[in-house]
Amino acid sequence: MKIVLDAFGGDNSPVEVIKGAVESLNKKENFKIVLVGNSSVICAELSKYEYEKNRIEVLNAESVITNEESPVEAVRKKRNSSIVIGLKALNEDAECKAFVSAGSTGAVLTAATLLIKRLEGVARPALAPVLPTVTKENVILIDCGANSDCKPEMLYQFAKMGIAYSQAIMGVGKNRVGLLNNGVEEGKGNELAKETYNLIKTKKGINFIGNIEAREIFSGDVDVVVTDGFSGNIALKASEGTATMLLTLMKESIMKGGIRSKIGYLLLKPMFKELKKTLDYNDLGGAVLLGLEKVIIKLHGSSKSKSFTAAILQAVEISQKEVVKKIIIN
Amino acid sequence: MKIVLDAFGGDNSPVEVIKGAVESLNKKENFKIVLVGNSSVICAELSKYEYEKNRIEVLNAESVITNEESPVEAVRKKRNSSIVIGLKALNEDAECKAFVSAGSTGAVLTAATLLIKRLEGVARPALAPVLPTVTKENVILIDCGANSDCKPEMLYQFAKMGIAYSQAIMGVGKNRVGLLNNGVEEGKGNELAKETYNLIKTKKGINFIGNIEAREIFSGDVDVVVTDGFSGNIALKASEGTATMLLTLMKESIMKGGIRSKIGYLLLKPMFKELKKTLDYNDLGGAVLLGLEKVIIKLHGSSKSKSFTAAILQAVEISQKEVVKKIIIN
Repeated sequence: MKIVLDAFGGDNSPVEVIKGAVESLNKKENFKIVLVGNSSVICAELSKYEYEKNRIEVLNAESVITNEESPVEAVRKKRNSSIVIGLKALNEDAECKAFVSAGSTGAVLTAATLLIKRLEGVARPALAPVLPTVTKENVILIDCGANSDCKPEMLYQFAKMGIAYSQAIMGVGKNRVGLLNNGVEEGKGNELAKETYNLIKTKKGINFIGNIEAREIFSGDVDVVVTDGFSGNIALKASEGTATMLLTLMKESIMKGGIRSKIGYLLLKPMFKELKKTLDYNDLGGAVLLGLEKVIIKLHGSSKSKSFTAAILQAVEISQKEVVKKIIIN
Repeated sequence: MKIVLDAFGGDNSPVEVIKGAVESLNKKENFKIVLVGNSSVICAELSKYEYEKNRIEVLNAESVITNEESPVEAVRKKRNSSIVIGLKALNEDAECKAFVSAGSTGAVLTAATLLIKRLEGVARPALAPVLPTVTKENVILIDCGANSDCKPEMLYQFAKMGIAYSQAIMGVGKNRVGLLNNGVEEGKGNELAKETYNLIKTKKGINFIGNIEAREIFSGDVDVVVTDGFSGNIALKASEGTATMLLTLMKESIMKGGIRSKIGYLLLKPMFKELKKTLDYNDLGGAVLLGLEKVIIKLHGSSKSKSFTAAILQAVEISQKEVVKKIIIN
């Protein structure tokens, strides 16, 4: 099995990407990595590491799509970019099972949708991150940005995809599906949420627990949260912004609190470290684009080597467990 | 000036409501409170306090609308509920300037829309909480739940209302308006966001800084965040859920961390206290329903006396500064 890795995606590429790639090889056997990007830069960087040479291939790609470019235009024009060349390799080589990138989300989504075949019956692929909860179990939020405007049928499909992913990866037995809404009562929500509720509740084989408010995403009471990509993105980013605000305010308060605060901080350091680990959902891997015949994993642009390692191992696991084959839309 | 207070709204009513009311009288002169609810219960509770008797009136209301009831039906049927009687008094008595309740959000919104006249030109009133940011300046999020399905023109009006509120209350000079979206670039978003962007950017007299992601709500870089009520509710609740998760995880970690953690916690107690104060946006008052000829303030159902005091003082301030008159839609 090969995992295709965009060596030039993200703020810390290629150094952190390549470091993460080498580390992932040390952590798991039986897979190879295809590094895509400027091959001389990649080879120079690789020369700094000890690794099994036959487990890394390099695929040359001359250009890089940046976050500033219009995704559709960039994908069309930059045929020699690491994203386009990487996804072409994923499509053409049966041994290639997944593509991992921390590059432009828009470009990855656009190119993946163009180059990789959709699963039968799937209307639109959706982006699904794994998030932490208060019980330390994880929750899947789907969609969180691939589809800004959705129809109820699409959200039903997201639920099916989320369940397949949850079952295969997280070993969650309950597969509780909640619909993200602005109130818990039946009949709440905008038109899309109301219609989706009415659609999903008629479907068999889904453990549908009804509407949930965004507060409940992190409660541990739900395994798959279904929503349109616009609302999912807002939930995800509002959560990130709040966590950042809290941690920043704490840090400032400790800094200006004198010696007492600083000693307190030192004593609580293990607690802060554990907290940071729980919150850092990049350690859980990246957001998976579900609904295509191959696996695409999108990482945060700011990802460091640890996140790349986690995402590569996540890609291997998803491929080994054949999550894609378990998504059956009917 | 009189502030009408729903004595039977919220999980801790009437005890905490009445405590908060008495405290607010001690904090500010020149206003009266009309307590609405079962008058014998209210009088018995009031008898526990020392206060200027002529500054509290009691208006009897036999029933209470609960969160479990359908708002529209409950407002129609329970004409003798504290919400309906309180809002009728607000409408009929020129001296009554604002209504404060921690009761059913749906019922307050429904009854307010039915009983209080809309401002000229306003299509729909919107709910606007004041939230903390990382710079400790505040931000207004409008709408956060009054309107699940919106049109671009409505969001433009929310921006105008938010600016009037921000200018009057927060003393913010910049009045930076951001449109909540799933990306910052022009052209991002769902249909509503795209059309709203195109509408607002043509309008004069608005300091429109363009799209913002939900992460930026808490950055201090924007003063008024405009969105539909569905998305705003999700941003608000996702933020609440994340803060709750963080504080819970910290507490658990400290508790199981042994003596070292506990000493660390004691030393950092002032920091945690300050953090809690910054985060507790109920101390900033409640969410204001803007767009009607009178002021409605909605508090969290779990509010304690401190929040009621804050909301009553907020109601007095909004009324004194004549925010309502400053909302001019054109």
